[in-house]
Amino acid sequence: MNFSSFLTSLGTSFVIFVVLMLLFTWLSRKPGNVEVYYPNRILKGMNPVEGGYMTRNPFSWIREAMSSSETDIINMSGVDTAVYFVFLGTALGIFVFSGVVLLPVLLPVASTDHSIKAANTTSKGTFNELDRLSMGHVGNSGPRLWAFIVATYWVSVVTYFLLWRAYKHVTELRAKALMSPEIRADQFAILVRDIPPTSVGQSKKEQIDSFFRAIYPDTFYRSMVVTDNKEVNKIYEELEGYKKKLERAEAIYAESKKTNPDALKPLHKTGFLGIVGEKVDSIEFYNDKIKELIQQLEVEQKVTLKEKQQSSALVFFNSRVAAASALQNLHAPIVDRWTVIDAPEPRQLIWTNLSKTFYVRIIRQYVVYVVVFLTIFFYMIPIGFISALTTLDNLVKLLPFLKPVVSQKAIKTVLEAYLPQLALIIFLALLPKFLMFLSKAEGIPSESHVTRAASGKYFYFSVLNVFIGVTLAGTLLGAFKSIEKDPNSIFRVLAESLPQNATFFLTFVALKFFVGYGLELSRIVPLIIFHLKKKYLCKTEAEIKEAWAPGDLGYATRFPSDMLIMTIVLCYSVIAPIILPFGVVYFGLGWLLLRNQALKVYVPSFESYGRMWPHIHTRMLATLILYQVTMCGYFGIKTFAPTPVLFPLPIFSLIFAFICQKKFRRFFESPALEVVSHELKEIPNMDIVFRSFIPPCLSAGKSDDHQFEDALSHVSKTGSSSV
Amino acid sequence: MNFSSFLTSLGTSFVIFVVLMLLFTWLSRKPGNVEVYYPNRILKGMNPVEGGYMTRNPFSWIREAMSSSETDIINMSGVDTAVYFVFLGTALGIFVFSGVVLLPVLLPVASTDHSIKAANTTSKGTFNELDRLSMGHVGNSGPRLWAFIVATYWVSVVTYFLLWRAYKHVTELRAKALMSPEIRADQFAILVRDIPPTSVGQSKKEQIDSFFRAIYPDTFYRSMVVTDNKEVNKIYEELEGYKKKLERAEAIYAESKKTNPDALKPLHKTGFLGIVGEKVDSIEFYNDKIKELIQQLEVEQKVTLKEKQQSSALVFFNSRVAAASALQNLHAPIVDRWTVIDAPEPRQLIWTNLSKTFYVRIIRQYVVYVVVFLTIFFYMIPIGFISALTTLDNLVKLLPFLKPVVSQKAIKTVLEAYLPQLALIIFLALLPKFLMFLSKAEGIPSESHVTRAASGKYFYFSVLNVFIGVTLAGTLLGAFKSIEKDPNSIFRVLAESLPQNATFFLTFVALKFFVGYGLELSRIVPLIIFHLKKKYLCKTEAEIKEAWAPGDLGYATRFPSDMLIMTIVLCYSVIAPIILPFGVVYFGLGWLLLRNQALKVYVPSFESYGRMWPHIHTRMLATLILYQVTMCGYFGIKTFAPTPVLFPLPIFSLIFAFICQKKFRRFFESPALEVVSHELKEIPNMDIVFRSFIPPCLSAGKSDDHQFEDALSHVSKTGSSSV
Repeated sequence: MNFSSFLTSLGTSFVIFVVLMLLFTWLSRKPGNVEVYYPNRILKGMNPVEGGYMTRNPFSWIREAMSSSETDIINMSGVDTAVYFVFLGTALGIFVFSGVVLLPVLLPVASTDHSIKAANTTSKGTFNELDRLSMGHVGNSGPRLWAFIVATYWVSVVTYFLLWRAYKHVTELRAKALMSPEIRADQFAILVRDIPPTSVGQSKKEQIDSFFRAIYPDTFYRSMVVTDNKEVNKIYEELEGYKKKLERAEAIYAESKKTNPDALKPLHKTGFLGIVGEKVDSIEFYNDKIKELIQQLEVEQKVTLKEKQQSSALVFFNSRVAAASALQNLHAPIVDRWTVIDAPEPRQLIWTNLSKTFYVRIIRQYVVYVVVFLTIFFYMIPIGFISALTTLDNLVKLLPFLKPVVSQKAIKTVLEAYLPQLALIIFLALLPKFLMFLSKAEGIPSESHVTRAASGKYFYFSVLNVFIGVTLAGTLLGAFKSIEKDPNSIFRVLAESLPQNATFFLTFVALKFFVGYGLELSRIVPLIIFHLKKKYLCKTEAEIKEAWAPGDLGYATRFPSDMLIMTIVLCYSVIAPIILPFGVVYFGLGWLLLRNQALKVYVPSFESYGRMWPHIHTRMLATLILYQVTMCGYFGIKTFAPTPVLFPLPIFSLIFAFICQKKFRRFFESPALEVVSHELKEIPNMDIVFRSFIPPCLSAGKSDDHQFEDALSHVSKTGSSSV
Repeated sequence: MNFSSFLTSLGTSFVIFVVLMLLFTWLSRKPGNVEVYYPNRILKGMNPVEGGYMTRNPFSWIREAMSSSETDIINMSGVDTAVYFVFLGTALGIFVFSGVVLLPVLLPVASTDHSIKAANTTSKGTFNELDRLSMGHVGNSGPRLWAFIVATYWVSVVTYFLLWRAYKHVTELRAKALMSPEIRADQFAILVRDIPPTSVGQSKKEQIDSFFRAIYPDTFYRSMVVTDNKEVNKIYEELEGYKKKLERAEAIYAESKKTNPDALKPLHKTGFLGIVGEKVDSIEFYNDKIKELIQQLEVEQKVTLKEKQQSSALVFFNSRVAAASALQNLHAPIVDRWTVIDAPEPRQLIWTNLSKTFYVRIIRQYVVYVVVFLTIFFYMIPIGFISALTTLDNLVKLLPFLKPVVSQKAIKTVLEAYLPQLALIIFLALLPKFLMFLSKAEGIPSESHVTRAASGKYFYFSVLNVFIGVTLAGTLLGAFKSIEKDPNSIFRVLAESLPQNATFFLTFVALKFFVGYGLELSRIVPLIIFHLKKKYLCKTEAEIKEAWAPGDLGYATRFPSDMLIMTIVLCYSVIAPIILPFGVVYFGLGWLLLRNQALKVYVPSFESYGRMWPHIHTRMLATLILYQVTMCGYFGIKTFAPTPVLFPLPIFSLIFAFICQKKFRRFFESPALEVVSHELKEIPNMDIVFRSFIPPCLSAGKSDDHQFEDALSHVSKTGSSSV
């Protein structure tokens, strides 16, 4: 890639970005699109746009995003989102502070060095304009390299400083959220697992209640035994499905009556996909089904509560301090019994994982780790295999009816171009879902934790495959022999091939922020899907609401792809400092755009009070260490004597990681009592707290809880219980 | 060493043992020695011997030791001692079960194999009688080796099984001790460290009290701020010293008056060592000094309590559950502030370590680890250097007045023989004290923990230096080159040199149990010291009591030397199964003798409720893994194809360690609430609990605590405090 084609690519991306921005300005002011561009505000019951549609300045969203405070973000989108902005801000800060020093110092140092000719340079000498600004332009020795060593230290020190500040700040955010006077149900409950078998003549509920009442006579409220809800959930979902269908049928009937008062009631066939079978009156049929299922549900609810109790429970306390203290305590001398953790919010509980026992969880975890390892390192093997099989000829052999289509010249050309990559494209599209599935299979009890786990796996995948993969791709085969001889030389090989790929990554980052963020802000795809659905599919209010449901920020994939950009920019920051402005634009633009999206579009699907941070912190440090090791390797191939002054850097990073872990980590696992001992705004209504945890499939059709007595314990009568 | 010299050595050891046993039988029946042989019973206020002295069967102590139950041991010597016997029992069990299978199977298999001649055999062919019974006598391949592979598995399985049972049993012991209805002060207190600086206008005490009262409004009792007691302690000790001297002077005066009514009052000189200076009347002088010091002490006590408050405190709760829960909780969002751990017993608190802050403790810990590492691996360097310097000639040059002594022929010979080893002997004698000092320097707050830490260091020292050191000593220099080429070959070298040293270790183990345990039981050394002191030094009752004070079992050195024997026997168990009976005798005899000593002699100096066990368990497993790796190496040098079936063994051990750690470990760090929620025999008198923690230097000369109000908080008035 030469300089002009680089500029062309940059220009194209920028034009796309401008077009998307204009589209956004135009589309977001149309009243019919308000559900696509302001769903979060609508769901929060606020006026979607503060001013009138037409009088608004088309760029007012920028002003709004800039002027919004962290408190606004927390109110609109939760602490997790605020923590995400701390991450974006920290990354931005690292690149701004690095750039302020590195650009004015390193660029002149590199460009004024004439000691070597364009041979061993970035992009193999075809790209002189950028080349002259990179470290490859500086000779293999000489005092000029000192500037790059100092720069390497400067970037590290800036990163330490900002990471430290960020960890402190996030700790404060989390503390503030946990000490909030609002009553949050999850702060009064703990999740107890691995309850030992009951003794004869004692019910699970009695066992749990007597156990906790003996230890916490004054603060224990009641317990809810976890049940196997598979059956009851199936019936409940079927019931809800029929309710929706009934509503839809009624809506269709009402509509057709408007135009034709004698319109027939809607009919449908009961067989497969409504294509075959007897024709029935839909409304009547659904009503019958619903009645039948409600009865079934009630029977199954009773059976579930009585007979499907599992060895875990939610235990409720009448104060935050009691619950926060209980979840940190060891309860039984055999550590794998009566294990406790904090209860997640009701909405993010994964009920099917609650009853997994101690060793099952551990074994599942390790099996998943092995699967992830294999996926990261060997995913190319099955994909290569499938690609080899899915040639056009094979496809025609398998599905002969495709022949007339395929023999068209144009279609054939396109298919031949994309078919080999098809398996890879499908794999990459499904990968986040697959990693989410694996994380869930570990037995993790909450959605937020699953998201963290999946995000970690995706991070390793993208850094290892995209960054290291692309960098090494060209040189790897040739370099394999030298790596085999000496495994440490992997860093050397990495360092040698880095400059050759600088321009590729420059383009990659630019594409990411111009096209990626353009699409993000303009929401073209959700807009089209929404309008199509609204026009052709949705009949009821509920269906329309479902069609514009915005979803959450999607941390599981968003964090890793940001981290990938961070890894790229950090690793190139000293070698080709010209990448730093690209990093600044990526994180600056991201901060601005996502601020708008967080305030107006996305609705968080859970709140973990910033628990994501230790993971982000660790991965940012891992990235920093990768950068430091790469720099050591890169300097290693030069004949520069003072190179070893870089070697302590990775050790400093490890010490920094150790101190941060000691100082901050535990608070993200267990709430500090000082924090939760703050006063609440009112005495909590424990019944509401308790009920919020009952899953809908069990609470449906209930007005009182006399049926729950089997699995849900009665309220503790403080004082009357024997200690 | 050939067979007859082995038998001679064994015989000599046995004769010494018999002589010492007879001595014990004779001496322990003399009324004048009752304080040496029954101090624990005397201190517990029991009749030292149940029957009369003369009518007793000389071997009745064996019956008594055999019939004593675990409960007796716990009552007389505490849970820690009971745990020590679980260790001895487990080791004994491992060797008995191993021996029962290995001896009748492996000995015939080895001795009937005639495939190789005595070349590559145990003890280099000079020791045929034992050789024929060892694995070295079996050919390098052939089906007979299968027996040894099965034996290797058998020993491992037996060890897993017994370790698992032992861990379970010790957990029960600890649980029983912690749930005891007795009121133990340490169960009501926690140790709080790293308290942040006070805000202006607030005293440390107020800060601590308001902090804990807010979190635990109902259960917080009061707090005791840790003070810097260095000064006050110095005065207190001086005072106690003068009190002892006064008592002694009065005793001397009373004695001399008995024989001579006009005896002069005792006099002494006030200068250096009582040799120079003014002559004064001792009784009057000491009385004056005591009066003066009491005043000084009171002043210093006030100053200490007011001005020398540190950033740590003991915090008391009015229930065991509250304290046990508090010590497991995180209190502040910044994890390195308000750190809590369980309070040790008052008698084992190391006050000087209490105020060490978080990072000081971590840094000290790592510095100590480095020092220990250097000590273990390089202690021979300074000792070799000192040995080289302390030749007889150098000594004479330095201390010319020694010349006439040294020129004596006999003395010269002895000195020349021992002088080179002198530095080593002194080093080895001082090593336990040095390791104890290092462990204390880590900043550990309790004696029992220091003992555990020192015991670990001593274990690594003895296994690495004695076992591996001796084994490799002969072969190491020659083998260095092959190790340098391939570090993994260290196990091969170890395995190759093992059989050559079997007889050395057989003799070593035999010496240990015959002579070591003989001395232990007969208590010849303490007996002689006691009688000498009683006759020539002691004048008062207190001094005599001090002279027979028995001390504790000395876990810091006792465990590691038992572990060394265990390592030796385990590693040789399959290679030369004849060592197993020696192991059985060592641990069997040890169990029996120490049972007697625990019941009658040693007085425990602390109680940690069996916290030693996880450390013992880990080290026994480490020993097992060393054995398994050695066996892999040993089989590796044979040309036996199925050798790899041994390779999973170390992995099994690691999995076993992991499971044990998950299942049992945490209970040894934090008390389970189920356990401490058991009822007490009476409502605890919190004032007594609180007072038991006041160090003697601060409580001396006090009848009420009105002076403590500066550093010791007032009783919490439950209900009246604002939450």
